[in-house]
Amino acid sequence: MSKILTEVLRANRNYRSDFDKADLPMPPGRQFAILTCMDARLDPAKYAGLAEGDAHVIRNAGGRASDDAIRSLVISYKLLGTREWFVIHHTDCGMETFTSEIMTELLNSSLKTASVDADGWHDCCEGPGSTEGKYINWLTIKDQAISVTEDVIRIKSHPLVPSDIPVYGYIYDVKTGGLIEVPTATEAGQAT
Amino acid sequence: MSKILTEVLRANRNYRSDFDKADLPMPPGRQFAILTCMDARLDPAKYAGLAEGDAHVIRNAGGRASDDAIRSLVISYKLLGTREWFVIHHTDCGMETFTSEIMTELLNSSLKTASVDADGWHDCCEGPGSTEGKYINWLTIKDQAISVTEDVIRIKSHPLVPSDIPVYGYIYDVKTGGLIEVPTATEAGQAT
Repeated sequence: MSKILTEVLRANRNYRSDFDKADLPMPPGRQFAILTCMDARLDPAKYAGLAEGDAHVIRNAGGRASDDAIRSLVISYKLLGTREWFVIHHTDCGMETFTSEIMTELLNSSLKTASVDADGWHDCCEGPGSTEGKYINWLTIKDQAISVTEDVIRIKSHPLVPSDIPVYGYIYDVKTGGLIEVPTATEAGQAT
Repeated sequence: MSKILTEVLRANRNYRSDFDKADLPMPPGRQFAILTCMDARLDPAKYAGLAEGDAHVIRNAGGRASDDAIRSLVISYKLLGTREWFVIHHTDCGMETFTSEIMTELLNSSLKTASVDADGWHDCCEGPGSTEGKYINWLTIKDQAISVTEDVIRIKSHPLVPSDIPVYGYIYDVKTGGLIEVPTATEAGQAT
């Protein structure tokens, strides 16, 4: 068992040992959702003050309003009753450090094409590369205020999103822990 | 300003007031990533023992290995150095409570088609419905052990995923706070 797996299971035993959240209902108690980045430095429960049971948290590379994030938000609204949403990108995001072309080239030059041996998963790590990266939109970011605004507008404009849901746009500052409003996005997000 | 927005910004001011994480590097310090559900009852930082800076956390409805989750995992590996991944679904998941057909019907019957007035966002909440839901795969779940196994296999089989990355499959029990291994998934996830 790897060191990480051992540590995660040990931490989970500690969490479980004094767990007192068995009776929380499925719908988020505070009826809101946050879409934010997967970045390791971000802890939405801490930076936005969430306890278990409070709010849906959707995270991907960049905190982007991908089709999958829209899927999650529509389920969040329609089946589980959230009525306000936040889009929170952040400073010093990895998504600013590359372009789709760079990612495609990296993958083309060094990442293994998947292969499975007769006896199971192939255990080699790097190979001749794969051109599959060309077929993925990596949703990179050039400017956080623009990406937040674009994502709020995309969510608000989506045919499956009710137009009366406020969508607040913010940037999390990894140097201060603070949330900075993106006014254009937030104005677009507030119901008129 | 809504009650929720006021509360989130107040919580953030508290977090910011004694923030001491300004010097964390961008790559996750413990070099792993967790893919899990957006469910409000789940706090991956607590159930898996994460501090800010430790690990990437990717979340969507169900914790599914969607194309967008794959995008995030490949970026996590290739640009930011994670080398072990967890797929963690959970008991009592909202994704077990409906089917794609039910979701499509719900949206078709009651969710507003997006519209924008001349003076801004339309402020009505419900309308004639939208057939857009037909075009989305909602990635519902019938059985958590099966969904975890399928998602681990999908990730391991993806042409952009190096085959030597262990992918551990677990179910989080919302009644106990504990992680339950999904052996088939985890065996498939361990490099041979």
